[in-house]
Amino acid sequence: MNDTNNFNDQNVSISFFKEEVKKFVEERNWSKYHTPKNLVQAINCEAGELSQLLLFKDYSKEEIMKNETLFTSISDEIADVFIYLISLINALDLDLRHIFTKKMEKNKKKYSSKEFNNGIYYKK
Amino acid sequence: MNDTNNFNDQNVSISFFKEEVKKFVEERNWSKYHTPKNLVQAINCEAGELSQLLLFKDYSKEEIMKNETLFTSISDEIADVFIYLISLINALDLDLRHIFTKKMEKNKKKYSSKEFNNGIYYKK
Amino acid sequence: MNDTNNFNDQNVSISFFKEEVKKFVEERNWSKYHTPKNLVQAINCEAGELSQLLLFKDYSKEEIMKNETLFTSISDEIADVFIYLISLINALDLDLRHIFTKKMEKNKKKYSSKEFNNGIYYKK
Amino acid sequence: MNDTNNFNDQNVSISFFKEEVKKFVEERNWSKYHTPKNLVQAINCEAGELSQLLLFKDYSKEEIMKNETLFTSISDEIADVFIYLISLINALDLDLRHIFTKKMEKNKKKYSSKEFNNGIYYKK
Repeated sequence: MNDTNNFNDQNVSISFFKEEVKKFVEERNWSKYHTPKNLVQAINCEAGELSQLLLFKDYSKEEIMKNETLFTSISDEIADVFIYLISLINALDLDLRHIFTKKMEKNKKKYSSKEFNNGIYYKK
Repeated sequence: MNDTNNFNDQNVSISFFKEEVKKFVEERNWSKYHTPKNLVQAINCEAGELSQLLLFKDYSKEEIMKNETLFTSISDEIADVFIYLISLINALDLDLRHIFTKKMEKNKKKYSSKEFNNGIYYKK
Repeated sequence: MNDTNNFNDQNVSISFFKEEVKKFVEERNWSKYHTPKNLVQAINCEAGELSQLLLFKDYSKEEIMKNETLFTSISDEIADVFIYLISLINALDLDLRHIFTKKMEKNKKKYSSKEFNNGIYYKK
Repeated sequence: MNDTNNFNDQNVSISFFKEEVKKFVEERNWSKYHTPKNLVQAINCEAGELSQLLLFKDYSKEEIMKNETLFTSISDEIADVFIYLISLINALDLDLRHIFTKKMEKNKKKYSSKEFNNGIYYKK
Protein backbone atom coordinates (compact mmCIF):
# COMPACT_ATOMS: atom_id res chain seq x y z
CA MET A 1 0.00 0.00 0.00
CA ASN A 2 1.54 3.26 -1.08
CA ASP A 3 0.39 5.05 2.02
CA THR A 4 1.06 8.76 2.05
CA ASN A 5 -0.41 11.12 4.57
CA ASN A 6 -2.08 13.37 2.05
CA PHE A 7 -4.38 10.59 0.87
CA ASN A 8 -7.79 10.94 2.47
CA ASP A 9 -11.51 10.74 1.77
CA GLN A 10 -11.37 13.91 -0.34
CA ASN A 11 -9.11 12.49 -2.97
CA VAL A 12 -9.18 8.71 -2.70
CA SER A 13 -11.41 6.85 -5.13
CA ILE A 14 -13.32 3.60 -4.58
CA SER A 15 -10.93 2.00 -7.06
CA PHE A 16 -8.13 2.47 -4.54
CA PHE A 17 -9.96 0.32 -1.96
CA LYS A 18 -10.91 -2.25 -4.58
CA GLU A 19 -7.27 -2.64 -5.65
CA GLU A 20 -5.95 -2.90 -2.11
CA VAL A 21 -8.48 -5.56 -1.13
CA LYS A 22 -8.02 -7.48 -4.36
CA LYS A 23 -4.25 -7.59 -3.89
CA PHE A 24 -4.58 -8.67 -0.27
CA VAL A 25 -6.94 -11.53 -1.18
CA GLU A 26 -4.92 -12.69 -4.20
CA GLU A 27 -1.55 -12.64 -2.42
CA ARG A 28 -2.95 -15.07 0.13
CA ASN A 29 -4.70 -17.21 -2.49
CA TRP A 30 -8.00 -16.62 -0.71
CA SER A 31 -10.22 -15.99 -3.75
CA LYS A 32 -11.64 -19.48 -3.36
CA TYR A 33 -13.01 -18.51 0.07
CA HIS A 34 -14.31 -15.16 -1.13
CA THR A 35 -17.41 -16.54 -2.82
CA PRO A 36 -20.55 -14.37 -2.81
CA LYS A 37 -22.23 -16.64 -0.24
CA ASN A 38 -19.25 -16.62 2.12
CA LEU A 39 -18.81 -12.87 1.78
CA VAL A 40 -22.41 -12.00 2.69
CA GLN A 41 -22.06 -14.26 5.73
CA ALA A 42 -18.76 -12.54 6.61
CA ILE A 43 -20.26 -9.05 6.28
CA ASN A 44 -23.04 -10.06 8.65
CA CYS A 45 -20.57 -11.47 11.19
CA GLU A 46 -18.45 -8.30 11.15
CA ALA A 47 -21.57 -6.14 11.39
CA GLY A 48 -22.46 -8.10 14.52
CA GLU A 49 -19.06 -7.39 16.05
CA LEU A 50 -19.50 -3.70 15.29
CA SER A 51 -22.99 -3.69 16.81
CA GLN A 52 -21.75 -5.46 19.94
CA LEU A 53 -19.44 -2.54 20.72
CA LEU A 54 -22.41 -0.28 21.43
CA LEU A 55 -24.77 -2.85 22.93
CA PHE A 56 -26.43 -1.37 26.03
CA LYS A 57 -24.37 1.80 25.45
CA ASP A 58 -26.09 4.77 23.88
CA TYR A 59 -22.89 6.82 23.64
CA SER A 60 -22.60 10.22 22.00
CA LYS A 61 -19.86 10.99 19.51
CA GLU A 62 -17.97 12.84 22.27
CA GLU A 63 -18.06 9.90 24.68
CA ILE A 64 -16.81 7.57 21.94
CA MET A 65 -14.00 9.98 21.01
CA LYS A 66 -12.77 10.20 24.62
CA ASN A 67 -12.66 6.41 25.00
CA GLU A 68 -9.60 5.48 22.93
CA THR A 69 -10.02 1.70 23.16
CA LEU A 70 -13.65 1.90 22.10
CA PHE A 71 -12.86 4.41 19.37
CA THR A 72 -10.17 2.15 17.87
CA SER A 73 -12.42 -0.91 18.11
CA ILE A 74 -15.28 0.86 16.34
CA SER A 75 -12.92 2.14 13.62
CA ASP A 76 -11.50 -1.35 13.12
CA GLU A 77 -14.90 -2.99 12.90
CA ILE A 78 -16.18 -0.38 10.44
CA ALA A 79 -13.11 -1.16 8.34
CA ASP A 80 -13.78 -4.91 8.57
CA VAL A 81 -17.36 -4.53 7.33
CA PHE A 82 -16.11 -2.27 4.53
CA ILE A 83 -13.28 -4.61 3.50
CA TYR A 84 -15.62 -7.57 3.08
CA LEU A 85 -18.14 -5.33 1.30
CA ILE A 86 -15.43 -4.26 -1.14
CA SER A 87 -14.38 -7.87 -1.63
CA LEU A 88 -17.99 -8.76 -2.52
CA ILE A 89 -18.09 -5.81 -4.93
CA ASN A 90 -14.86 -7.15 -6.47
CA ALA A 91 -16.22 -10.69 -6.66
CA LEU A 92 -19.30 -9.45 -8.54
CA ASP A 93 -17.51 -6.77 -10.59
CA LEU A 94 -19.82 -4.04 -9.40
CA ASP A 95 -19.44 -0.28 -9.55
CA LEU A 96 -20.26 0.98 -6.04
CA ARG A 97 -20.91 4.49 -7.33
CA HIS A 98 -23.53 3.09 -9.68
CA ILE A 99 -25.39 0.88 -7.22
CA PHE A 100 -25.24 3.59 -4.54
CA THR A 101 -26.87 6.12 -6.88
CA LYS A 102 -29.56 3.67 -7.99
CA LYS A 103 -30.47 2.88 -4.37
CA MET A 104 -30.40 6.51 -3.27
CA GLU A 105 -32.88 7.30 -6.04
CA LYS A 106 -35.21 4.59 -4.74
CA ASN A 107 -34.83 5.91 -1.18
CA LYS A 108 -35.61 9.46 -2.34
CA LYS A 109 -38.81 8.24 -3.96
CA LYS A 110 -39.83 6.11 -0.97
CA TYR A 111 -39.04 8.85 1.53
CA SER A 112 -39.78 12.02 -0.42
CA SER A 113 -38.35 15.06 1.31
CA LYS A 114 -41.78 16.70 0.98
CA GLU A 115 -43.43 14.01 3.05
CA PHE A 116 -40.49 13.31 5.34
CA ASN A 117 -39.31 16.70 6.46
CA ASN A 118 -40.31 16.97 10.06
CA GLY A 119 -38.40 14.21 11.72
CA ILE A 120 -40.93 11.46 11.24
CA TYR A 121 -39.26 8.30 10.15
CA TYR A 122 -41.98 5.93 9.11
CA LYS A 123 -44.99 6.25 6.87
CA LYS A 124 -48.18 6.28 8.90
CA MET B 1 -27.55 14.25 -6.80
CA ASN B 2 -25.69 15.58 -9.84
CA ASP B 3 -25.58 12.23 -11.50
CA THR B 4 -23.58 12.12 -14.68
CA ASN B 5 -22.70 8.94 -16.45
CA ASN B 6 -18.97 9.49 -16.38
CA PHE B 7 -18.87 9.35 -12.58
CA ASN B 8 -17.74 5.93 -11.43
CA ASP B 9 -15.49 4.12 -8.94
CA GLN B 10 -12.38 5.36 -10.76
CA ASN B 11 -13.01 9.02 -10.13
CA VAL B 12 -15.51 9.30 -7.31
CA SER B 13 -14.12 10.02 -3.85
CA ILE B 14 -15.45 8.88 -0.50
CA SER B 15 -16.36 12.50 0.19
CA PHE B 16 -18.96 12.27 -2.56
CA PHE B 17 -20.80 9.48 -0.72
CA LYS B 18 -20.44 11.25 2.62
CA GLU B 19 -22.03 14.41 1.22
CA GLU B 20 -24.88 12.58 -0.47
CA VAL B 21 -25.78 10.62 2.66
CA LYS B 22 -25.41 13.68 4.91
CA LYS B 23 -27.73 15.71 2.70
CA PHE B 24 -30.30 12.91 2.57
CA VAL B 25 -30.34 12.53 6.36
CA GLU B 26 -30.44 16.27 7.07
CA GLU B 27 -33.20 17.05 4.56
CA ARG B 28 -35.43 14.59 6.41
CA ASN B 29 -34.35 15.80 9.86
CA TRP B 30 -33.23 12.26 10.68
CA SER B 31 -29.94 13.07 12.43
CA LYS B 32 -31.59 12.39 15.78
CA TYR B 33 -32.21 8.77 14.70
CA HIS B 34 -28.73 8.34 13.27
CA THR B 35 -26.99 7.88 16.61
CA PRO B 36 -23.96 5.58 16.71
CA LYS B 37 -25.93 2.88 18.57
CA ASN B 38 -28.85 2.98 16.12
CA LEU B 39 -26.51 2.96 13.13
CA VAL B 40 -24.56 -0.12 14.20
CA GLN B 41 -27.89 -1.90 14.74
CA ALA B 42 -29.06 -0.72 11.30
CA ILE B 43 -25.87 -1.94 9.59
CA ASN B 44 -26.36 -5.35 11.18
CA CYS B 45 -30.00 -5.51 10.02
CA GLU B 46 -29.11 -4.61 6.45
CA ALA B 47 -26.22 -7.08 6.48
CA GLY B 48 -28.74 -9.74 7.49
CA GLU B 49 -30.98 -8.87 4.54
CA LEU B 50 -27.98 -9.11 2.23
CA SER B 51 -26.97 -12.47 3.69
CA GLN B 52 -30.51 -13.82 3.34
CA LEU B 53 -30.35 -13.38 -0.45
CA LEU B 54 -27.73 -16.13 -0.72
CA LEU B 55 -28.93 -18.37 2.10
CA PHE B 56 -28.86 -22.01 0.91
CA LYS B 57 -27.65 -20.71 -2.49
CA ASP B 58 -23.96 -21.04 -3.28
CA TYR B 59 -24.25 -19.16 -6.56
CA SER B 60 -21.32 -18.21 -8.77
CA LYS B 61 -20.90 -14.70 -10.12
CA GLU B 62 -22.27 -15.88 -13.46
CA GLU B 63 -25.45 -17.35 -11.96
CA ILE B 64 -26.06 -14.13 -10.03
CA MET B 65 -25.51 -12.00 -13.15
CA LYS B 66 -28.06 -14.01 -15.13
CA ASN B 67 -30.74 -13.67 -12.44
CA GLU B 68 -31.78 -10.04 -12.80
CA THR B 69 -34.07 -9.91 -9.76
CA LEU B 70 -31.41 -11.41 -7.51
CA PHE B 71 -28.70 -9.20 -9.01
CA THR B 72 -30.72 -6.05 -8.33
CA SER B 73 -31.59 -7.20 -4.81
CA ILE B 74 -27.94 -7.91 -3.98
CA SER B 75 -26.87 -4.55 -5.43
CA ASP B 76 -29.53 -2.74 -3.40
CA GLU B 77 -28.64 -4.49 -0.16
CA ILE B 78 -24.91 -3.80 -0.65
CA ALA B 79 -25.87 -0.14 -1.12
CA ASP B 80 -27.99 -0.20 2.05
CA VAL B 81 -25.14 -1.56 4.17
CA PHE B 82 -22.81 1.01 2.64
CA ILE B 83 -25.21 3.94 3.15
CA TYR B 84 -25.60 3.23 6.87
CA LEU B 85 -21.85 2.65 7.14
CA ILE B 86 -21.23 6.07 5.58
CA SER B 87 -23.81 7.62 7.90
CA LEU B 88 -21.94 6.17 10.90
CA ILE B 89 -18.68 7.49 9.48
CA ASN B 90 -20.36 10.90 9.17
CA ALA B 91 -21.76 10.72 12.70
CA LEU B 92 -18.28 10.02 14.09
CA ASP B 93 -16.39 12.32 11.69
CA LEU B 94 -14.11 9.53 10.54
CA ASP B 95 -11.85 9.34 7.52
CA LEU B 96 -12.60 5.97 5.91
CA ARG B 97 -9.30 6.02 4.01
CA HIS B 98 -7.47 6.36 7.31
CA ILE B 99 -9.26 3.64 9.26
CA PHE B 100 -9.14 1.30 6.26
CA THR B 101 -5.37 1.67 5.99
CA LYS B 102 -4.85 1.17 9.73
CA LYS B 103 -6.91 -2.03 9.68
CA MET B 104 -5.26 -3.36 6.53
CA GLU B 105 -1.88 -2.93 8.23
CA LYS B 106 -3.10 -5.00 11.18
CA ASN B 107 -4.46 -7.65 8.82
CA LYS B 108 -1.17 -7.78 6.92
CA LYS B 109 0.69 -8.40 10.18
CA LYS B 110 -1.81 -10.99 11.42
CA TYR B 111 -1.92 -12.81 8.08
CA SER B 112 1.59 -12.27 6.73
CA SER B 113 1.77 -13.14 3.04
CA LYS B 114 4.81 -15.34 3.86
CA GLU B 115 2.81 -17.54 6.19
CA PHE B 116 -0.50 -17.28 4.30
CA ASN B 117 0.41 -17.91 0.70
CA ASN B 118 -0.97 -21.30 -0.08
CA GLY B 119 -4.64 -20.90 0.45
CA ILE B 120 -4.74 -21.73 4.14
CA TYR B 121 -7.03 -19.36 5.93
CA TYR B 122 -6.52 -19.96 9.62
CA LYS B 123 -3.44 -20.19 11.80
CA LYS B 124 -2.97 -23.73 13.02
CA MET C 1 -48.70 -31.14 15.30
CA ASN C 2 -51.10 -32.38 17.97
CA ASP C 3 -51.99 -28.92 19.10
CA THR C 4 -54.11 -28.79 22.21
CA ASN C 5 -54.78 -25.65 24.14
CA ASN C 6 -53.46 -26.92 27.43
CA PHE C 7 -49.94 -27.29 26.03
CA ASN C 8 -47.82 -24.33 27.07
CA ASP C 9 -44.38 -23.33 28.37
CA GLN C 10 -45.14 -24.90 31.76
CA ASN C 11 -45.49 -28.41 30.47
CA VAL C 12 -43.89 -28.59 27.05
CA SER C 13 -40.37 -30.01 26.88
CA ILE C 14 -37.56 -29.05 24.51
CA SER C 15 -37.95 -32.50 22.95
CA PHE C 16 -41.35 -31.42 21.67
CA PHE C 17 -39.79 -28.59 19.64
CA LYS C 18 -36.96 -30.82 18.45
CA GLU C 19 -39.42 -33.40 17.14
CA GLU C 20 -41.64 -30.85 15.42
CA VAL C 21 -38.71 -29.18 13.63
CA LYS C 22 -37.13 -32.50 12.72
CA LYS C 23 -40.37 -33.76 11.19
CA PHE C 24 -40.88 -30.53 9.26
CA VAL C 25 -37.36 -30.64 7.80
CA GLU C 26 -37.47 -34.35 6.96
CA GLU C 27 -40.91 -34.26 5.33
CA ARG C 28 -39.58 -31.65 2.89
CA ASN C 29 -36.27 -33.47 2.36
CA TRP C 30 -34.42 -30.35 3.51
CA SER C 31 -31.81 -32.00 5.74
CA LYS C 32 -29.23 -31.43 3.00
CA TYR C 33 -29.73 -27.67 3.35
CA HIS C 34 -29.70 -27.74 7.13
CA THR C 35 -25.93 -28.07 7.47
CA PRO C 36 -24.30 -26.42 10.50
CA LYS C 37 -22.79 -23.66 8.32
CA ASN C 38 -26.10 -22.86 6.60
CA LEU C 39 -27.98 -22.92 9.88
CA VAL C 40 -25.71 -20.43 11.66
CA GLN C 41 -26.06 -18.14 8.62
CA ALA C 42 -29.86 -18.59 8.73
CA ILE C 43 -30.03 -17.82 12.47
CA ASN C 44 -28.10 -14.60 11.86
CA CYS C 45 -30.45 -13.60 8.99
CA GLU C 46 -33.56 -14.19 11.08
CA ALA C 47 -32.01 -12.34 14.03
CA GLY C 48 -31.51 -9.40 11.67
CA GLU C 49 -35.16 -9.45 10.67
CA LEU C 50 -36.16 -9.49 14.34
CA SER C 51 -33.81 -6.60 15.12
CA GLN C 52 -35.14 -4.57 12.20
CA LEU C 53 -38.62 -4.54 13.76
CA LEU C 54 -37.41 -2.33 16.62
CA LEU C 55 -34.84 -0.27 14.72
CA PHE C 56 -35.23 3.41 15.71
CA LYS C 57 -38.11 2.34 17.97
CA ASP C 58 -37.44 2.05 21.70
CA TYR C 59 -40.89 0.68 22.46
CA SER C 60 -42.04 -0.52 25.85
CA LYS C 61 -43.79 -3.85 26.31
CA GLU C 62 -47.13 -2.01 26.52
CA GLU C 63 -46.61 -0.16 23.22
CA ILE C 64 -45.68 -3.43 21.50
CA MET C 65 -48.74 -5.22 22.93
CA LYS C 66 -51.08 -2.52 21.64
CA ASN C 67 -49.66 -2.67 18.10
CA GLU C 68 -51.06 -5.96 16.82
CA THR C 69 -49.14 -6.02 13.53
CA LEU C 70 -45.84 -5.35 15.29
CA PHE C 71 -46.64 -7.83 18.06
CA THR C 72 -47.37 -10.59 15.54
CA SER C 73 -44.23 -9.76 13.53
CA ILE C 74 -42.02 -9.87 16.62
CA SER C 75 -43.59 -13.17 17.73
CA ASP C 76 -43.07 -14.66 14.27
CA GLU C 77 -39.44 -13.56 14.06
CA ILE C 78 -38.67 -14.87 17.56
CA ALA C 79 -40.15 -18.18 16.40
CA ASP C 80 -38.02 -18.13 13.24
CA VAL C 81 -34.77 -17.62 15.18
CA PHE C 82 -35.84 -20.38 17.59
CA ILE C 83 -36.80 -22.83 14.82
CA TYR C 84 -33.39 -22.54 13.12
CA LEU C 85 -31.68 -22.73 16.51
CA ILE C 86 -33.54 -25.98 17.24
CA SER C 87 -32.66 -27.30 13.77
CA LEU C 88 -28.97 -26.62 14.51
CA ILE C 89 -29.34 -28.36 17.88
CA ASN C 90 -30.89 -31.31 16.02
CA ALA C 91 -28.13 -31.30 13.40
CA LEU C 92 -25.47 -31.47 16.12
CA ASP C 93 -27.44 -33.77 18.48
CA LEU C 94 -27.12 -31.36 21.37
CA ASP C 95 -29.03 -31.23 24.63
CA LEU C 96 -30.14 -27.59 25.00
CA ARG C 97 -30.70 -28.03 28.73
CA HIS C 98 -27.09 -29.15 29.09
CA ILE C 99 -25.43 -26.40 27.04
CA PHE C 100 -27.67 -23.76 28.63
CA THR C 101 -26.64 -24.83 32.13
CA LYS C 102 -22.93 -24.92 31.21
CA LYS C 103 -23.10 -21.39 29.77
CA MET C 104 -25.13 -20.01 32.66
CA GLU C 105 -22.47 -21.31 35.05
CA LYS C 106 -19.80 -19.44 33.07
CA ASN C 107 -21.94 -16.28 33.07
CA LYS C 108 -22.46 -16.55 36.84
CA LYS C 109 -18.71 -16.74 37.35
CA LYS C 110 -17.98 -13.88 34.95
CA TYR C 111 -20.71 -11.66 36.38
CA SER C 112 -20.81 -12.72 40.04
CA SER C 113 -23.95 -11.43 41.76
CA LYS C 114 -21.70 -10.02 44.51
CA GLU C 115 -19.87 -7.78 42.05
CA PHE C 116 -22.83 -7.12 39.75
CA ASN C 117 -25.70 -6.25 42.04
CA ASN C 118 -26.25 -2.55 41.53
CA GLY C 119 -27.17 -2.31 37.89
CA ILE C 120 -23.69 -1.92 36.47
CA TYR C 121 -23.30 -4.02 33.40
CA TYR C 122 -19.65 -4.04 32.55
CA LYS C 123 -16.50 -4.65 34.54
CA LYS C 124 -14.59 -1.45 35.05
CA MET D 1 -29.83 -23.49 39.52
CA ASN D 2 -30.93 -26.81 41.01
CA ASP D 3 -28.90 -28.76 38.56
CA THR D 4 -29.38 -32.48 38.68
CA ASN D 5 -28.05 -34.80 36.08
CA ASN D 6 -31.35 -36.34 35.14
CA PHE D 7 -32.71 -33.03 33.88
CA ASN D 8 -32.54 -32.92 30.11
CA ASP D 9 -34.45 -31.91 26.98
CA GLN D 10 -36.93 -34.76 27.52
CA ASN D 11 -38.25 -33.48 30.81
CA VAL D 12 -37.29 -29.82 31.13
CA SER D 13 -39.95 -27.26 30.27
CA ILE D 14 -39.51 -23.83 28.73
CA SER D 15 -40.61 -22.39 32.08
CA PHE D 16 -37.39 -23.72 33.58
CA PHE D 17 -35.29 -21.60 31.19
CA LYS D 18 -37.54 -18.58 31.68
CA GLU D 19 -37.13 -18.77 35.45
CA GLU D 20 -33.36 -19.22 35.33
CA VAL D 21 -32.85 -16.27 32.97
CA LYS D 22 -35.29 -14.08 34.91
CA LYS D 23 -33.49 -14.77 38.19
CA PHE D 24 -30.09 -14.10 36.62
CA VAL D 25 -31.22 -10.76 35.19
CA GLU D 26 -33.04 -9.64 38.34
CA GLU D 27 -30.23 -10.56 40.74
CA ARG D 28 -27.93 -8.23 38.79
CA ASN D 29 -30.55 -5.49 38.48
CA TRP D 30 -30.22 -5.67 34.70
CA SER D 31 -33.91 -5.47 33.76
CA LYS D 32 -33.40 -1.83 32.75
CA TYR D 33 -30.93 -2.96 30.07
CA HIS D 34 -33.12 -5.83 28.90
CA THR D 35 -35.52 -3.66 26.90
CA PRO D 36 -37.05 -5.17 23.74
CA LYS D 37 -34.88 -2.95 21.51
CA ASN D 38 -31.65 -3.85 23.31
CA LEU D 39 -32.53 -7.53 23.35
CA VAL D 40 -33.16 -7.80 19.61
CA GLN D 41 -29.83 -6.07 19.04
CA ALA D 42 -28.16 -8.49 21.49
CA ILE D 43 -29.67 -11.55 19.79
CA ASN D 44 -28.32 -10.34 16.45
CA CYS D 45 -24.83 -9.78 17.92
CA GLU D 46 -24.72 -13.24 19.46
CA ALA D 47 -26.04 -14.78 16.25
CA GLY D 48 -23.11 -13.11 14.47
CA GLU D 49 -20.63 -14.64 16.89
CA LEU D 50 -22.20 -18.05 16.31
CA SER D 51 -22.07 -17.59 12.53
CA GLN D 52 -18.42 -16.50 12.68
CA LEU D 53 -17.43 -19.89 14.10
CA LEU D 54 -18.30 -21.63 10.84
CA LEU D 55 -17.31 -18.85 8.43
CA PHE D 56 -15.35 -20.39 5.52
CA LYS D 57 -15.75 -23.79 7.24
CA ASP D 58 -18.38 -26.16 5.89
CA TYR D 59 -17.83 -28.73 8.65
CA SER D 60 -19.88 -31.86 9.11
CA LYS D 61 -21.31 -32.82 12.48
CA GLU D 62 -18.48 -35.34 12.89
CA GLU D 63 -15.73 -32.78 12.26
CA ILE D 64 -17.33 -30.40 14.77
CA MET D 65 -17.63 -33.18 17.38
CA LYS D 66 -13.94 -34.06 17.06
CA ASN D 67 -12.81 -30.44 17.51
CA GLU D 68 -13.40 -29.87 21.22
CA THR D 69 -12.62 -26.13 21.23
CA LEU D 70 -14.95 -25.49 18.30
CA PHE D 71 -17.64 -27.75 19.76
CA THR D 72 -17.59 -25.89 23.07
CA SER D 73 -17.61 -22.49 21.32
CA ILE D 74 -20.60 -23.44 19.17
CA SER D 75 -22.46 -24.81 22.20
CA ASP D 76 -21.74 -21.61 24.16
CA GLU D 77 -22.86 -19.33 21.35
CA ILE D 78 -26.07 -21.31 20.79
CA ALA D 79 -26.72 -20.88 24.52
CA ASP D 80 -26.05 -17.12 24.29
CA VAL D 81 -28.53 -16.64 21.46
CA PHE D 82 -31.07 -18.75 23.38
CA ILE D 83 -30.53 -16.88 26.67
CA TYR D 84 -31.20 -13.48 25.08
CA LEU D 85 -34.17 -14.95 23.18
CA ILE D 86 -35.63 -16.21 26.47
CA SER D 87 -34.99 -12.83 28.08
CA LEU D 88 -36.94 -11.16 25.26
CA ILE D 89 -39.73 -13.69 25.71
CA ASN D 90 -39.72 -12.83 29.43
CA ALA D 91 -39.72 -9.09 28.71
CA LEU D 92 -42.78 -9.47 26.48
CA ASP D 93 -44.51 -12.16 28.57
CA LEU D 94 -44.78 -14.52 25.63
CA ASP D 95 -45.50 -18.23 25.55
CA LEU D 96 -42.85 -19.75 23.29
CA ARG D 97 -44.93 -22.87 22.72
CA HIS D 98 -47.75 -20.70 21.44
CA ILE D 99 -45.74 -18.50 19.07
CA PHE D 100 -43.77 -21.51 17.81
CA THR D 101 -46.97 -23.36 16.93
CA LYS D 102 -48.50 -20.33 15.21
CA LYS D 103 -45.36 -19.84 13.09
CA MET D 104 -45.03 -23.53 12.24
CA GLU D 105 -48.61 -23.47 10.99
CA LYS D 106 -47.75 -20.56 8.67
CA ASN D 107 -44.62 -22.38 7.49
CA LYS D 108 -46.62 -25.53 6.78
CA LYS D 109 -49.02 -23.54 4.64
CA LYS D 110 -46.27 -21.65 2.83
CA TYR D 111 -44.22 -24.77 2.22
CA SER D 112 -46.87 -27.46 1.91
CA SER D 113 -45.37 -30.92 2.13
CA LYS D 114 -47.22 -31.80 -1.09
CA GLU D 115 -45.42 -29.11 -3.04
CA PHE D 116 -42.12 -29.30 -1.14
CA ASN D 117 -41.35 -32.98 -0.93
CA ASN D 118 -38.46 -33.49 -3.27
CA GLY D 119 -35.76 -31.35 -1.81
CA ILE D 120 -36.58 -28.11 -3.58
CA TYR D 121 -36.37 -25.21 -1.21
CA TYR D 122 -37.84 -22.24 -2.99
CA LYS D 123 -41.05 -21.69 -4.90
CA LYS D 124 -40.41 -21.28 -8.59
